[in-house]
Amino acid sequence: MTRMVAPAPQDSGEDRLIAKFFRPLARGPGAFDLTDDAAILAPPPGHDVVLKTDAIVGGVHFFPDDPPDAIGRKALRVNLSDLAAKGARPAGFLLTLALPDGIGDDWLCGFAGGLDRDVTLYDCPLLGGDTVKSPERVMVSIAAFGLVPQGTMVRRNGARPGDQVFVTGTIGDAALGLKLRRDPDAAARHGLDPRAREHLLSRYLVPEPRGALAEILRQHASAAMDVSDGLAGDLAKLCRASGASAELDAEKVPRSDAARIMLAAEPALIETMLTGGDDYEIVCTVPPARVAAFLSAAGRTSVLVTAIGRIVAGDEPPRFTHQGRSLAFVKPSFSHF
Amino acid sequence: MTRMVAPAPQDSGEDRLIAKFFRPLARGPGAFDLTDDAAILAPPPGHDVVLKTDAIVGGVHFFPDDPPDAIGRKALRVNLSDLAAKGARPAGFLLTLALPDGIGDDWLCGFAGGLDRDVTLYDCPLLGGDTVKSPERVMVSIAAFGLVPQGTMVRRNGARPGDQVFVTGTIGDAALGLKLRRDPDAAARHGLDPRAREHLLSRYLVPEPRGALAEILRQHASAAMDVSDGLAGDLAKLCRASGASAELDAEKVPRSDAARIMLAAEPALIETMLTGGDDYEIVCTVPPARVAAFLSAAGRTSVLVTAIGRIVAGDEPPRFTHQGRSLAFVKPSFSHF
Repeated sequence: MTRMVAPAPQDSGEDRLIAKFFRPLARGPGAFDLTDDAAILAPPPGHDVVLKTDAIVGGVHFFPDDPPDAIGRKALRVNLSDLAAKGARPAGFLLTLALPDGIGDDWLCGFAGGLDRDVTLYDCPLLGGDTVKSPERVMVSIAAFGLVPQGTMVRRNGARPGDQVFVTGTIGDAALGLKLRRDPDAAARHGLDPRAREHLLSRYLVPEPRGALAEILRQHASAAMDVSDGLAGDLAKLCRASGASAELDAEKVPRSDAARIMLAAEPALIETMLTGGDDYEIVCTVPPARVAAFLSAAGRTSVLVTAIGRIVAGDEPPRFTHQGRSLAFVKPSFSHF
Repeated sequence: MTRMVAPAPQDSGEDRLIAKFFRPLARGPGAFDLTDDAAILAPPPGHDVVLKTDAIVGGVHFFPDDPPDAIGRKALRVNLSDLAAKGARPAGFLLTLALPDGIGDDWLCGFAGGLDRDVTLYDCPLLGGDTVKSPERVMVSIAAFGLVPQGTMVRRNGARPGDQVFVTGTIGDAALGLKLRRDPDAAARHGLDPRAREHLLSRYLVPEPRGALAEILRQHASAAMDVSDGLAGDLAKLCRASGASAELDAEKVPRSDAARIMLAAEPALIETMLTGGDDYEIVCTVPPARVAAFLSAAGRTSVLVTAIGRIVAGDEPPRFTHQGRSLAFVKPSFSHF
């Protein structure tokens, strides 16, 4: 097994790769400059470490010809999105990078450069990793670590009837962006101008973790999770964990201008938007008594939050109404298997 | 991205898979029974979390037709081997499992069953994970977490001239086992009986992490690392990190009876044994004043430790002598790239 460890002149190509591209990302004392076999995380007293791992696979979660810096950023950000939803501040990550033979320095330089920018942006250093051979395709698995004051991780299971349901940002952009990648003529067919098209494509390419909301969720939310497999399915998971149901107004679900244009041209896309996944927004529930404080605190960040419905008693999946009618989804959530 | 989260009846195949095979491994309160998006590790006051990730890839680190329980155990144990070498007690792990479509319940049942036994054996619960599609081959990436009293992780860089060099167990068995897998006639050619052959094959298939030595290393070793890429190359890394060199007696490097038989038949196999990798033993250095206490403590465990040489001043790679002559290796260490 090959550790992600910095090299010396007589070292292998693998060691060279690590020193050249990844050592600069290993900031912070616990990484030991990638010169040891393992790293250290020393949580401040009274804190829990929040642990999360998510992997992305070439041809499955991203297109093999995506810019390598976007692949690096996506790999980290899908994890940071979960940390934010759980109320945690990023503390570092481990990287497993599986690479085919054909990957050269240009690709690696782009990949590590994208990661490097996000290491700075999110103050989340690389702590260690492993590079392995993967004959057919790139695979990136990241384990990310966050910190929360002891016992304050925001769970899925705290939603109660009467709580309001909020989502961050806009929903459906990434799923529509993926549709445009798969069907390049769709942009013209749906009347998208280049800027709107670019917006949707970029939302699929690189998510925006909502770290600015982490502490606010810890203070005010009864439950939260990130929206990665589709709002309908993810909210169903939150409701199930909480032993409750929800009533949502699909028209209140926040949409970007670009998504509005596509939806106007093809109303059936509402299902794609609500179930398609890759949003990396946060869905959370807030008890009535905390809604004002939550909105006030969120209003001081750059993250848009929108009320889309409320938690109700019951054990059926959340119900989305749209123009007075209940929406039924063919497939409420993304699944690989 | 799909979280490793327990399911309900209306859930996807992926959720079913996780509940059926992996939920039983998620012992301990921090895993939340795999019902949330992230897990918690709450280190006891005054402890550091030791972080390690290693991945194994089908057709690269294991044979696709290896028994699935052995693949599961190997994936975890290669990480536990590092934790042991760093002096850490296992505390849990995250699992990323990338699976081709053809993988069925039988394989998963074996894989999870192997992991389950090791979760118990090493008291190292599954805390969370991610399952993704990997069109061509199985890939398993594990991030393992250990605990050490603050500031006591055993580093690579503490070896000093005069320290004795020790290794655990026997060296070279796994590399010879791999040779037998690749060249099935080799066993007969080298005069191995079925038991000796089985010993070497099993040493390649499933490593034995030396957790029993973790605390002893923290108390007595000046430096340690696990031997996974070949003793010669790994010891060179330890020496380099410590700013020192080493003189080793190749004849003192502990060998199993099976390895002795193969070596007698083909003396050139000494290079395979010292550079081949997959040993998952520990190489460590102990200052002269602590050697007696180290040997006494190690003697109370079931792990064999053997002195093979000493650290000397200098910056050249460690020198192995064999029957009075210096050994030169074609390729001192395994590397993927």
